[in-house]
Amino acid sequence: MPLEAALQTLRDTCAAMPPLAALGVAVDGYADGRFGVRAPLALNVNDKGNAFGGSLTSLMTLAGWGLVNLQLQLSGLEAEVYVADSDIRYRAPVYDDLRAEAWLADGQSWEDFLATLRQRGRARVRIEAGVPLAEGGMAAELGGRFVAIAKG
Amino acid sequence: MPLEAALQTLRDTCAAMPPLAALGVAVDGYADGRFGVRAPLALNVNDKGNAFGGSLTSLMTLAGWGLVNLQLQLSGLEAEVYVADSDIRYRAPVYDDLRAEAWLADGQSWEDFLATLRQRGRARVRIEAGVPLAEGGMAAELGGRFVAIAKG
Repeated sequence: MPLEAALQTLRDTCAAMPPLAALGVAVDGYADGRFGVRAPLALNVNDKGNAFGGSLTSLMTLAGWGLVNLQLQLSGLEAEVYVADSDIRYRAPVYDDLRAEAWLADGQSWEDFLATLRQRGRARVRIEAGVPLAEGGMAAELGGRFVAIAKG
Repeated sequence: MPLEAALQTLRDTCAAMPPLAALGVAVDGYADGRFGVRAPLALNVNDKGNAFGGSLTSLMTLAGWGLVNLQLQLSGLEAEVYVADSDIRYRAPVYDDLRAEAWLADGQSWEDFLATLRQRGRARVRIEAGVPLAEGGMAAELGGRFVAIAKG
């Protein structure tokens, strides 16, 4: 599947998920190996006027999930993707609209991941994600493992 | 502050937070050292018909945040509570309405936490949280550190 068609599939999937629609989550795009999503602060604000930690984590988790799905679609593989675990660090409050991006963790390879999925019908991959701050650095960071299970 | 008044304050805070209102999150209550929150599956469902991982994490994070706030209110202390970090394991899909509960981690003490906050204006506490399955066990588990910073 070409990139634009794969992104549109992800946009449609996100739009059809009630919690993502409720939080105003939208797919930003994919460039330089990074998949990005965003959401408005107004729909994700906490009692202190900055972004709710759960929304930051939801956005980072979704960015990772979307990145893995995108790779599957670009490769023509059909699989369900689940998050298996994640470690999160919250470093600074976010007072702007929320944005999260996800990328392949160091030492991981899409080729190995896709080859394992083709051979065994199941594969794991480590992903990193973050919420960039306008002034540089990350407001929050996530490292997680995602599992793909081939369909059918 | 008595327990019922503290729970009502937390209910009001949650109701006023747009992302929690959007996901239908409600405070369940507090018993046996455990603080519980819940949300309907219909508002938190993913593309596979079970609970979105981000919603499970949001609910567990909120349960931990609520537990710490509750202890502060019961003790008459005013402080802002932030989640500092968390480790999450997703073990099984959730096909029912979502529920999360949080409790003090082993080796932690509310007395120590509150004493440190009174003395230094800042304190940390380790919390555990989980999403119980109807058939027993946990669908997801979170361990996290929360920071309280005294107001004023």
